[in-house]
Amino acid sequence: MTTLSLTKHHGLGNDFLVLLDLDGARPVDAALARALCDRHRGVGADGILRVTAGTDGADVTMQLRNADGSLAEMSGNGIRCLAQAVLDAGVLAGPNLTVATSAGVRHLTVRPGDVDGVLHVSVDMGPAKVGPDQPQPTDDRGVRPVDMGNPHLVVRGPSFTTEDVLGMGAHLQTLYAGGVNVEFVTVGPGLDELTMRVWERGVGETQACGTGACAAAAAVHEWGLVGTRVVVHQPGGDAEVELRPDGVVLTGPAQRVARIEVDAAIGGGP
Amino acid sequence: MTTLSLTKHHGLGNDFLVLLDLDGARPVDAALARALCDRHRGVGADGILRVTAGTDGADVTMQLRNADGSLAEMSGNGIRCLAQAVLDAGVLAGPNLTVATSAGVRHLTVRPGDVDGVLHVSVDMGPAKVGPDQPQPTDDRGVRPVDMGNPHLVVRGPSFTTEDVLGMGAHLQTLYAGGVNVEFVTVGPGLDELTMRVWERGVGETQACGTGACAAAAAVHEWGLVGTRVVVHQPGGDAEVELRPDGVVLTGPAQRVARIEVDAAIGGGP
Repeated sequence: MTTLSLTKHHGLGNDFLVLLDLDGARPVDAALARALCDRHRGVGADGILRVTAGTDGADVTMQLRNADGSLAEMSGNGIRCLAQAVLDAGVLAGPNLTVATSAGVRHLTVRPGDVDGVLHVSVDMGPAKVGPDQPQPTDDRGVRPVDMGNPHLVVRGPSFTTEDVLGMGAHLQTLYAGGVNVEFVTVGPGLDELTMRVWERGVGETQACGTGACAAAAAVHEWGLVGTRVVVHQPGGDAEVELRPDGVVLTGPAQRVARIEVDAAIGGGP
Repeated sequence: MTTLSLTKHHGLGNDFLVLLDLDGARPVDAALARALCDRHRGVGADGILRVTAGTDGADVTMQLRNADGSLAEMSGNGIRCLAQAVLDAGVLAGPNLTVATSAGVRHLTVRPGDVDGVLHVSVDMGPAKVGPDQPQPTDDRGVRPVDMGNPHLVVRGPSFTTEDVLGMGAHLQTLYAGGVNVEFVTVGPGLDELTMRVWERGVGETQACGTGACAAAAAVHEWGLVGTRVVVHQPGGDAEVELRPDGVVLTGPAQRVARIEVDAAIGGGP
């Protein structure tokens, strides 16, 4: 009976299991993803990242399944965890690596953090397509749709309560076919800083959202309230967003949590 | 830099980390328990069980901390996980073992399950002190307080909705100083069977509760509706309760999940 070897990491409180499967011998189907990510009967995580040999000229290929077993194209927090697992295992040396995802090949750059077990990873997240400003009653509020490959609605205001986030987040899901990620953003406290809470479609309020941080920075930049290098404060921690002419670069931490040998009965297989 | 070696197990969906520390070299304080049990930034569990050398004549000693860092006297689901970890590691051979807890020395008996990774464990849970029947409007309803070392209120009815469990569970917390565990019990579907949902004080609705299953069986037995050997169906799975003259014996599964090496940055320590 073999066990399944995984590592666990988190990026701003968004936690992932990583399976290195460079020879492609261990597919992860929806049932296995659900079993492993189950927080009470399995190991527990927001998702599982399977790393296979590179395709499309990339160093490695990423397959991401959410805790509910569904396939996801991309996760800004998840791909940082993947980079840490790949470097920890000595598969690649860094500091530059490329990862093929269903959303395209992503370029990553890593640097060690000041704290043990932490790696800082910059990821090109592709272009932010900022939609038109929505008419609002006052100057200190605004709403803009942003397409980061997934749909976002950036809502700017002087302050947001938990009731705002939960109520408005849930309500807006009913207005958008397929749902929408909603970023509740306050400009500040410092120059070129934003404070953000996020409602992720299909999940609810989360600690941090990579594409959401990018969408928020792009929208608020369009309003002329921040420059092109923006720190986004989120409940799970800070992310840095750089708005470049050729796309958005997101930088944030990956924290190593544990090495895990999953029992055969849960996910080791025969 | 050392890592911290743990195992993860669950009993009816109630999950625990187990640390074998027979030489007493690795105390688990509230902060470490919180860091390890954090489901997004740590390994994740409902609690952590530290196993040290036996005291009071017992084979081993159990220290249990909840995910919030607080010390707990006893967990019917947790002590089964502890037994599995101790036997897996070869510390004891079974099938009988004794565990010193803050609630007294517990006698356990283990037998292998039919399924891989599962151990069935019987635990003496001490006496159930069943309080007086509370006046109720109809024959198919009843309420009784039960003391299992912790306080319970067993509520019997023909059926319970989620609204009943959440609403009544929360409401009753306001009436009892220190809170109360509430068992919502329907007699059946089979002879000597109960179907139960439980509200645990300080937690809310859970998948299963060991002392709650004992309290429910004892109360319904007092009403004359079940015998002395009762199967208690819970959302997390089934437990067996035997009401003996010298105390209540609870039998249920422990499922091995994983072996875990926690990174020094999370809980490995220097």
